[in-house]
Amino acid sequence: MTRYKAIISYDGTAFSGFQRQPHARTVQEEIEKTLLRLNSGKEVVIHGAGRTDAGVHAYGQVIHFDLPQERDVEKLRFGLDTQCPDDIDIVDIAIVSDDFHARYNKHSKTYEFLVDIGRPKNPMMRNYATHYPYPVDLSLMQEAILDLQGTHDFTGFTAAGTSVENKVRTISHASVERDEKTGFLVFTFSGNGFLYKQVRNMVGTLLKIGNGRMPVSQIKTVLESRNRDLAGPTAAGNGLYLKEITYDN
Amino acid sequence: MTRYKAIISYDGTAFSGFQRQPHARTVQEEIEKTLLRLNSGKEVVIHGAGRTDAGVHAYGQVIHFDLPQERDVEKLRFGLDTQCPDDIDIVDIAIVSDDFHARYNKHSKTYEFLVDIGRPKNPMMRNYATHYPYPVDLSLMQEAILDLQGTHDFTGFTAAGTSVENKVRTISHASVERDEKTGFLVFTFSGNGFLYKQVRNMVGTLLKIGNGRMPVSQIKTVLESRNRDLAGPTAAGNGLYLKEITYDN
Repeated sequence: MTRYKAIISYDGTAFSGFQRQPHARTVQEEIEKTLLRLNSGKEVVIHGAGRTDAGVHAYGQVIHFDLPQERDVEKLRFGLDTQCPDDIDIVDIAIVSDDFHARYNKHSKTYEFLVDIGRPKNPMMRNYATHYPYPVDLSLMQEAILDLQGTHDFTGFTAAGTSVENKVRTISHASVERDEKTGFLVFTFSGNGFLYKQVRNMVGTLLKIGNGRMPVSQIKTVLESRNRDLAGPTAAGNGLYLKEITYDN
Repeated sequence: MTRYKAIISYDGTAFSGFQRQPHARTVQEEIEKTLLRLNSGKEVVIHGAGRTDAGVHAYGQVIHFDLPQERDVEKLRFGLDTQCPDDIDIVDIAIVSDDFHARYNKHSKTYEFLVDIGRPKNPMMRNYATHYPYPVDLSLMQEAILDLQGTHDFTGFTAAGTSVENKVRTISHASVERDEKTGFLVFTFSGNGFLYKQVRNMVGTLLKIGNGRMPVSQIKTVLESRNRDLAGPTAAGNGLYLKEITYDN
């Protein structure tokens, strides 16, 4: 048995998210179907570092899976890449030790969130950025976003009723800039783990702060109160990208 | 009767081109259907500055049409924009003189062509750039593309059997750069008119030159011989953008 780690990218538009589920097209199912063909009809299960929701994209999702033989990794990457559907690409494959686990090995994730604040929106980007056609003050968001950095209980920024018990996470980097060329807002968050819908809820809150309908102090208020009702709305998934995953050593 | 000029953008992916045709979804048909609703059920015909093929995108297509009344242009733009399908956006509307014609008034067009030379390709851009996963020497293409500038008979770069008789056109600007951020090749062409498939054939030839499978002198050879067989293959439409149209006042 040989364990493989793969970096994959996908366009989330036509997927009901990463994780396999009945009666829905998922990234996991498409890759497993392709691996089945490459593995003489024997089932292969893949494990992703993180689940992404419907419409959410990835440049650097990481998966692992086992095959009976040791294969040439570039040939395997090429075969998997060309046989997977067009909206999934296999960026890199490496052989890893048998105890590597994409999800449980310690790692840091970076998410990016694109917001098209143009009016009218760019039709080419309608599935690749969230449209927010209201005035925003970038400096207010840049001030507020700093309060997300550090170790906090993020209960107020996750969806109600999630099963995870410990909601303390560390965000090592949080920033928002305006891309000169596209005019889009680019939010970037890095950390050791994110709760369900956390990034989208943080962005929804920051946009409301930028628009002046919530004070800059609202981030602190949500963190301290742990009250989801005090945060802004969940931003749409189409602006979200799982950008990169870095494993410790 | 009032004549309106509109700048529109659209994602060409799900269209069989700009021009209305039976049993196919076209940009013209979708806008005319929307204008019909905004004009109390009376038919409105739109005229585009240029036709774009299936899969070809536009940031700055120009159309004109007539309505019985003079309307507030921003209200009209907003109504048309929100009622058109998601892959069409109405960027600007202005009232123009009754003799303005989007196609026949003298104008210059700028086209852009994006080529993803990454390996593997970016799945988010699979409908918005043409993938060319072979090595290319940018400097060879930059040298060759200069031969396209100026006034030439472009017969060798158009599709065989086009009905247009005069194939002499002037290209005022032709360049190719590598976008630092995306790594994509960006071809830009401006001129007073382009023949059917001309841009895609020029790009297909330039890529072959960049890949070393045609000499830098091939552009001159195709222009002088007017022989389509000596040009490279037609590049796919998904990388092509009608970027901007400028009318001589």
